[in-house]
Amino acid sequence: MKIGIIGGGSIGLLFAGYLAEQHNVTIYTRTEHQANEINKKGVTINKQNTSKTYRVQAKKTSVSVIEEDIVFFAVKQYIVEDVLLQIPDLEKVRTVCFLQNGMSHIKIIEKLINPTILVGIVEHGALKKNETTVTHTGVGGTKIGVFKGKNKAFDSTIPDFPIESHEKWYEIVTSKLIVNAVINPLTALYGVKNGELLENGYFHNQMKALFHEITSVIPSNKEKMWELVMTICENTAQNKSSMLRDIEKGSKTEIEAILGYVLGEAIKKNEKVVITQFLYDSIKGKEQKGG
Amino acid sequence: MKIGIIGGGSIGLLFAGYLAEQHNVTIYTRTEHQANEINKKGVTINKQNTSKTYRVQAKKTSVSVIEEDIVFFAVKQYIVEDVLLQIPDLEKVRTVCFLQNGMSHIKIIEKLINPTILVGIVEHGALKKNETTVTHTGVGGTKIGVFKGKNKAFDSTIPDFPIESHEKWYEIVTSKLIVNAVINPLTALYGVKNGELLENGYFHNQMKALFHEITSVIPSNKEKMWELVMTICENTAQNKSSMLRDIEKGSKTEIEAILGYVLGEAIKKNEKVVITQFLYDSIKGKEQKGG
Repeated sequence: MKIGIIGGGSIGLLFAGYLAEQHNVTIYTRTEHQANEINKKGVTINKQNTSKTYRVQAKKTSVSVIEEDIVFFAVKQYIVEDVLLQIPDLEKVRTVCFLQNGMSHIKIIEKLINPTILVGIVEHGALKKNETTVTHTGVGGTKIGVFKGKNKAFDSTIPDFPIESHEKWYEIVTSKLIVNAVINPLTALYGVKNGELLENGYFHNQMKALFHEITSVIPSNKEKMWELVMTICENTAQNKSSMLRDIEKGSKTEIEAILGYVLGEAIKKNEKVVITQFLYDSIKGKEQKGG
Repeated sequence: MKIGIIGGGSIGLLFAGYLAEQHNVTIYTRTEHQANEINKKGVTINKQNTSKTYRVQAKKTSVSVIEEDIVFFAVKQYIVEDVLLQIPDLEKVRTVCFLQNGMSHIKIIEKLINPTILVGIVEHGALKKNETTVTHTGVGGTKIGVFKGKNKAFDSTIPDFPIESHEKWYEIVTSKLIVNAVINPLTALYGVKNGELLENGYFHNQMKALFHEITSVIPSNKEKMWELVMTICENTAQNKSSMLRDIEKGSKTEIEAILGYVLGEAIKKNEKVVITQFLYDSIKGKEQKGG
């Protein structure tokens, strides 16, 4: 299968490398420089003590993707709209798949006319080391659901890189949203690793109160969701959340797509979400303050 | 007048020095070492480019205070109870005056049998430099009200160190409480100087929401109080709040006496104070985490 991947960040490189095991992969990067580097050196995935390099074709994002059977979007949610505008002939690709966190890209992809639109969530831990190398810090999986179009999403059984089709896209995306909403802003606020939310009784109380607010607005099976949040927090106890890393780097965070979405739903449903609003302001305030 | 001052921190040293202009002052310190140093070197107050040293007698806290006409307590609210137990013959002193922030010392001093009990709030900025030296970083004043006993509290017109008697102790103490409750926990949470709460729109929103919650529980003239909070925040824009300094040093903060008191009042009045609870947990969690 011919697979295109938009975005040369940690998730883009991870997908490009692993999928190259079985497919003909082209990665589309923001800069010419990164594309040249990947064409020269391939994509290298480090995992524990192993390192493997994959032959991957690379191009700058602004060229046509018309030859691809499926195009994965592995860019931050807040640049999806811009990136879509940069790609010529995108509408001629049969299948597009969006891997963003949160829900704010949904209203954007609703407008696309591609026959099949998929949405997925990525549960791997990955850190970009340089323009051609990514460290696979946590082996998880990818879940993909059909947002529009054919019945089946996309499956793969590549070792350490499973991709599963799911029937209900909304549940996949909201469950990741809730997990992110509960773990990321709190860890970014306090500058702590995920595990601290389990160990510190006060932070744990806040986690519970926040979870309660969010699930009063986003429909879900509360008991199962809380178990999932706890499990992910335990499994990633030694990790820094992406939002904390963004705050530390002085980068823009995904707060709009996560708590911003919860705030929007709360307004629609006329629910009060005081802690969500407070945390949203905390992260926006820290972004504005910088560093 | 013979004046005793319990506590050799920044406020204790400031009171000892300035009051020595007109009174016979003895400062009671926790350590023998500090008492010896003060007996040897006096108390030095630095202010801008000036420095003045005052002759002050010093003793360890555990000795009798029976000779004093008035004893000021300049110790943190959370050690008031312990300190009271260490002082022999305290009940024989006619007048005691408590200078703590917050309200949690009130239930302790209610039990004292001294004929006159005063409570005051200190609006000076002061930083302890070493065991005998304090820097007077912001000239303010001291307001004292009668909690129990005679009509008049205590007045003084020492330059740069005015002390005013007020009729209503509750208003003095709660207005300081509200100011501290709105400024200190937020600045300690974000690690910012007081002025950042005015400049950063997101933090300013949080300040407003918090003020609204607190004044729904603590009776006050809302409009005047908000003006006071703004004025103090502006006047101390370049300062770090005492709670932020405590968090930075890894010391215990006064959160119990400030937001802990608000939470207690909220329970009594059956009011929901979600932001107050969240911030209380934030500061307690940061204390527990350390550094």
